[in-house]
Order: sequence, then C-alpha cells, then structure tokens
Amino acid sequence: MKTYNVAVVGATGAVGRTMLKILEERNFPVKEILPLASSRSAGHRIEFSGKAYEVKEAKPSAFEGVDIALFSAGKDISLTLAPEAVKRGAVVIDNSNAFRMEPDVPLVVPEVNPYDLKRHKGLIANPNCSTIQMVIVLKPLHERAKIKRVVVSTYQAVSGTGLEAIEELKLQAKQVLEGMNIKPEVYPHQIAFNLLPHIDAFDETGYSLEEWKMVRETKKIMGDDSIAVTATTVRVPVFNCHSESVNIETCEKITADEARAILSRAPGVVVMDDPKNKIYPMPAFLSGKDEVFVGRIREDFTVPCGLNLWIVADNLRRGAAYNAVKIAEYLVEHNLI
Amino acid sequence: MKTYNVAVVGATGAVGRTMLKILEERNFPVKEILPLASSRSAGHRIEFSGKAYEVKEAKPSAFEGVDIALFSAGKDISLTLAPEAVKRGAVVIDNSNAFRMEPDVPLVVPEVNPYDLKRHKGLIANPNCSTIQMVIVLKPLHERAKIKRVVVSTYQAVSGTGLEAIEELKLQAKQVLEGMNIKPEVYPHQIAFNLLPHIDAFDETGYSLEEWKMVRETKKIMGDDSIAVTATTVRVPVFNCHSESVNIETCEKITADEARAILSRAPGVVVMDDPKNKIYPMPAFLSGKDEVFVGRIREDFTVPCGLNLWIVADNLRRGAAYNAVKIAEYLVEHNLI
Repeated sequence: MKTYNVAVVGATGAVGRTMLKILEERNFPVKEILPLASSRSAGHRIEFSGKAYEVKEAKPSAFEGVDIALFSAGKDISLTLAPEAVKRGAVVIDNSNAFRMEPDVPLVVPEVNPYDLKRHKGLIANPNCSTIQMVIVLKPLHERAKIKRVVVSTYQAVSGTGLEAIEELKLQAKQVLEGMNIKPEVYPHQIAFNLLPHIDAFDETGYSLEEWKMVRETKKIMGDDSIAVTATTVRVPVFNCHSESVNIETCEKITADEARAILSRAPGVVVMDDPKNKIYPMPAFLSGKDEVFVGRIREDFTVPCGLNLWIVADNLRRGAAYNAVKIAEYLVEHNLI
Repeated sequence: MKTYNVAVVGATGAVGRTMLKILEERNFPVKEILPLASSRSAGHRIEFSGKAYEVKEAKPSAFEGVDIALFSAGKDISLTLAPEAVKRGAVVIDNSNAFRMEPDVPLVVPEVNPYDLKRHKGLIANPNCSTIQMVIVLKPLHERAKIKRVVVSTYQAVSGTGLEAIEELKLQAKQVLEGMNIKPEVYPHQIAFNLLPHIDAFDETGYSLEEWKMVRETKKIMGDDSIAVTATTVRVPVFNCHSESVNIETCEKITADEARAILSRAPGVVVMDDPKNKIYPMPAFLSGKDEVFVGRIREDFTVPCGLNLWIVADNLRRGAAYNAVKIAEYLVEHNLI
C-alpha cells in the first residue's frame, strides 16, 4: 500500500491535535508525520502512533517532500504557507477561511460533494465547522424536496475558538461560582453562564463573518446558488460540540416522518429524535463522535413546506479534523494525489 | 390614596420573591401584603418593606378580603385556587399556563395590549416569559409593517424553572469542573455546560408546550391571528435572562436603521446594537432590568422584507413579576379593580 508524508500545520492547537488523533485512529497510510506550528510552539513534543515527534516551525522549506499538508493554524498562516506547500508538491487541505470562496478551490464535505475534489489544483478548503454539520443534514433533504430558504441560529461551543477558550470557560465558571471578579481575555466578554451573539468580526451589514460563512459556504458546497441562508451565530458556555436550530422551507412537501426516514439513511447522519422519551441531541454527550446528530424534527406549520431541525456535532472532529482526514482519504482512494 | 390587600401565591418561589421585591420597589399601594405558598413552605418568613411576614398556606379561605392576588405557584395551584380567589372578590393575575388561552381571560403585556384589561372578569393571565419579551419588540414593528411570520429560537435561562434549577446549575458546574459524577434532578439531563432542546412537555406534533405557548400567545396578545410563529425552545446554562434569536418577515419593507429608530422609541425597549464595538445584549449582564434589550438588528437578505433580531430580558422580572405588577398598576390607575 502506498504511504504518504503528512504535515499537520497547527499541530499543537485544538483542531491540529484532533487531526493527529484521527489520522492515527483511522490508520491513515502515513509514511512520515510532520507536526508543524508557529515558532512559539516549535520544540514541543507530540505523540503519534506511540512515537514522540518534535514539533517543527512551519516555514516554506518545511514542506519539502510533503505529500499532504493539513492546515489548521489560522487564516494568516494559511495565506502565507499554503501556496508554498503547494509549490513544493503537497496537496493542502486547509481548515481556515483563507481560500474557501476562491472559485478554483474545492470546498468539500465528503458526504455532500466529494466529486468537487476531482478538480483540485493542489489546494482544497475544509468548510467552516457550523456549515459542515448543517449541510450534511440538508443535502439529502435538498435532493428530495429542493431547499429554498434556511433560517439558522447557532449555539457554538468554545472549543471552536481554541484550547485557550476551553481554559477560559473553565476558569471563569470557577470564578463565577466563587463570586470572584472575571477578566475576559480570549472573548471580549464573560463567556461562563453567558451568551455572546458574536463569532468572528462584524461587517457593515451587521452580520458577522461566521454568519456570512454559513450563507456563502452552504451555496458552494451544495452546488446551488439558489439556496437562501440567513444566520445568527452565538457562542454558548459549552466546551465542545456545536448545536444549531435550523428552519428550512422546501419546494416540495416533506413530512417529519419522511424527513426522519430520509435522514436515517443519509451518510454520516444519526437521527436521535424521541423527545417524549427525552431523546434529542445534546452537545455535552456527543464529543468524540464523527456523525452529525439530528433531532426535534418537526413540520413548520407556518409555511406550506417547512421543517424545524436541531443539529449537533463535534465541531473539532466532524466540523474540522475528521472532515479534513476524510478528504485526504478520498484523495488517496481515488488517486487524486 | 386607595390601598389594596395584595396576596402573592408562591411567595417563596423565584417569581414570587421577585413579585414581592417589585411591589416594594415600585411603591405599589399595598394595604396588607399576604404571602401564600404550599403547606410545605407555610411558616417560612419573608420580608416586605422592612417588616417580617409569615408565609401562610394557600387555601380558599386565605383569599377573604384580598383585592389583588398575584399567582405564581404552577398550573395546578392556579386551576384550584384562582377561581376561589375570584369568587371571594379578588382580581387574580395569574402567571401560570392555566387560563392563558381562555377566550374570557385577557392575556396582557401592558406595553402591548393594555386595552384588553378593560374586559377582565376577575381573572387576568400573565403571558409566558419567552413570549412577553418577544411581543414587546414585535408590536411596534407589526404596527409599522405588519408581521407575517416569525421563526424564533430561544436560549432560556434556568431561573425560568425555579430556584432549585439555579442551585442545580451551580452544583453541576462545580461537579463538572472537579471531574465528579452528575446526577440530574431538576432537569432530565445535565444542564451545566450543556443545552437541552426541551422546555415543558412534548405533544404528538413533536413541539413542546413552551413552543406552542410562543405560537398561540403571540397571536392573542398582538390581537392578530394571522401572525404565524414557529419556535424552537432551548434551555441553556445561564442563570437568569432569556435570549432569543428572532427572524421576522413583514408585509412592508423596514430597513435595519428604521427598525432601530422604531424600537428606540418603543415603550419598554432598549436598543443595544453596536456590534463592531462589541455592544449587544447578553444575559449575564441584564439581570435586574425591567426593559427588553434588542440588538444584532439586521436585514434578512433571503426575503424581500425580513429582519433578524437578538432579544434579551430578565425572565423573572420582565417576563413574569414586573409584567404582573404592571398589570396591577394599570388596573389601579384605570379603576378596573
């Protein structure tokens, strides 16, 4: 079996660590693993398949001989180094927002639009976490009934911000319980026992970039510009797993029962929908899962053809690292690398 | 000035305590205060205007001589005792779900439909907390542009469940931080660092009663059955103040700027909307306020006439106790008692 030199850029971050774990779990055909990070984190040691590796500084020359580079070190690093990696012959799967909307760059969720990988030119974008889990559920419903419009409100975990945000939530929660003063550092305001309707920067429309990502990436991944999405994205005091309240309007009628049947057969989706028996997806219990969980499936009685859905997934795995590794697997299986 | 004998039923609960506090703060013309509760809580002492009162058992005879009875002790107590209080000449303002949809019973938010109080027959219903804060914001927009449809997702604080839920969140948060096991008692699942898309019981449609309350009460309070509402209600690990992500479609176009101008003039509403400067309503900072706070006001570009709104209010005060006391004040001012 062919094996590959795999670089993980941002290897010490929340997503990077999860990428390494998933490459290991899934026995990805790794020849050499190359953990890279900023000069600040270089020198740290990480484990991979029972062997210790030193984290090296991410710089252009580090990509010599690399076959696949998984990037998750922020937009600026991707903008600078992803082209350098591609120049040196690596296929880059980039988790940042740097290239997602470039027409030349496939934006892929393997369960939704794997065929877009065929046209890659060395650079592939991993979508935003909150978009990935939504489109995995929307795709089979779109194929059946054509989705016209989506109104989504998110409940996003702090792990999406990074390890330092997980620590901030822990620290602040303790401080609130003990009646101490709080000094927010990672977020602009207290996150413990609070909600921040603020993810990423705001533009002149009043929308945040996170909201625009859901609008634009959904159209591109689903390959249908006619799907209208409006989003409100909110950070909640949950450690991991994003949740979404999603309202859709379709061209054709789907009952809740039919939606459950369709979603039960959909790749990567688990229907968890028996509210009378207190069964619905909850973020605290779905960390470590690679599927997208959907429940609270109900007809929306305010429109002729509408549904409400509650969608939860592990944003670090399903919304980032697992998606990137699945893309790499697809490239390998289909000789696209 | 005329003064009144005021009973507070459920005086030891989260809403009852807040009712007593607000009656005191607002110098409501109280002749005698009569704190009532279940036999379990009878004998407790509460303070009102610097004087200690013994909590008496809520039973029919307790309402002899009472002018105004504020009920907040759950649906069953209201069903049993509210008619007994009315029979004895009291005007009842009931915070439970027992009578809200009775055609004979006015369901009132004083800033929205005070005129409905004129037709009361001794029993007035206080709407559901999550509905109150929404309709206060929607009413002025409805008057300007006629709202056709509302899609709302809520982020509801544990105080809505009661004092025991506040304690459960505190305890569980501590237990999670210390790596201890959790045994949910008030909620069916862990609430600390988690989300429960489950408020009140579910019916055969898959909707919860809390969701139906928002659908039905909005139409009744706004006096317009044509307003279509669909809701997803979610409990979040926040101590107090409910938050709501609200999407509306209107018949006529309102820009975000015009919406801000309208809402700035609306009674009981505070516009808090400068996201670039990190200004938006957040539940952790709005406890103790009587206004409804609205921010993240944006045009919804997926429909010809639509807006997204983020609405936060103190559910114990604005969503319950303050609303009830405002109703009582209106009755007094307009000789409706």
